[in-house]
Amino acid sequence: MSKIKFYSYFRSSAAFRVRIALNLKKIGYEYVPVHLTKGGGEQNQDSYSAINSMKEIPSIEIDGKILSQSMAILGFLDAKFPEPRLFPEDPFLRAQVIQFSENVNAGIHPVQNLKVLQELEKRFGCDQAAKNSWAGYWIERGFRSLEAFLKKSSGIYVFGDQLTAADLFLVPQVFNAIRYKVDMAPFPKIQGVHDQCMKQDAFLKAQPSAQPDFES
Amino acid sequence: MSKIKFYSYFRSSAAFRVRIALNLKKIGYEYVPVHLTKGGGEQNQDSYSAINSMKEIPSIEIDGKILSQSMAILGFLDAKFPEPRLFPEDPFLRAQVIQFSENVNAGIHPVQNLKVLQELEKRFGCDQAAKNSWAGYWIERGFRSLEAFLKKSSGIYVFGDQLTAADLFLVPQVFNAIRYKVDMAPFPKIQGVHDQCMKQDAFLKAQPSAQPDFES
Repeated sequence: MSKIKFYSYFRSSAAFRVRIALNLKKIGYEYVPVHLTKGGGEQNQDSYSAINSMKEIPSIEIDGKILSQSMAILGFLDAKFPEPRLFPEDPFLRAQVIQFSENVNAGIHPVQNLKVLQELEKRFGCDQAAKNSWAGYWIERGFRSLEAFLKKSSGIYVFGDQLTAADLFLVPQVFNAIRYKVDMAPFPKIQGVHDQCMKQDAFLKAQPSAQPDFES
Repeated sequence: MSKIKFYSYFRSSAAFRVRIALNLKKIGYEYVPVHLTKGGGEQNQDSYSAINSMKEIPSIEIDGKILSQSMAILGFLDAKFPEPRLFPEDPFLRAQVIQFSENVNAGIHPVQNLKVLQELEKRFGCDQAAKNSWAGYWIERGFRSLEAFLKKSSGIYVFGDQLTAADLFLVPQVFNAIRYKVDMAPFPKIQGVHDQCMKQDAFLKAQPSAQPDFES
């Protein structure tokens, strides 16, 4: 069995995605918390930037090898621990799963994450309400597109009745939406996938409030 | 032979990535320009948002199927037209290529792209200098990390002497860096990969100035 260290922060939605995958695949791991705000951010210390030069969460150490970026980690875990499969084998369906996931990973999340909000405060004096407005704007913009996509499909998950990586990207983004006070009423399909997923142990145990470094 | 329509904008760095792949793999396609600024942006018109509900460039239509998000398109093209291969078969090396690519795709580019800069102008009255400063901040932050990664490797490309998807993400990001007046002197390794790639026809013919919709 591989020895795995997982560098995480309870609130990081990118780490949340990987925690769900680790749980679904029943992969044991050591949880290494990295506090993103305490003392200027532990991710900015040399000890962590040696692991992840982007100074971002998550990173994973597996068999002595280190990887970061949730999309890369999920792909690697899927190759090494294929059950249950998160990325379908059919090339077009696989590409659709990646497309949906990237709409969160590259389309929504990067523009509303912590370090962007911190920079808005620093440059433009944004208070919490202005930061919520910024984050909410990008989340709602993205969710309108994802909701339209989901309206054309049917099933309990993003892709029919098959859980895929797309669900692992969507659920943590809903947590962020709620955090930034987005009204979820216009997004019943997204809410439905979220609710379905959050009935499952792998998701429940991966949520921020279930992590050892959780702070309310 | 598949009939391929490629929805592009000359300046879009996400479209630039896919154009390089199409050229490398010698895949013929019809170029469909979508102007991102004219008349409020052609990507916001119903005719295009029916193709791409995120209202983003690029999208590709192949055998009647539509895909968006450059990472998804590149993965699909690599499965359907495997020569030359952009994502290595070895799972760890493949994950490293995705990690590096995501550092651009999700780490740098989304925070400095056109619609974010437009929103900064709208909300905070940013002029071109303030927008350059914002874009430059995120590009330099990301490039410091990518440069550190490249210092540990050796070879003419991001991953040794093997051209991979990572190079297709890096080169268009260098074009953006120059556009936003980033000083490239601290990034000799990145500049070196860029220069090596830009000797090749597949890259030269994919650059913004070589596109039918180019405007100076």
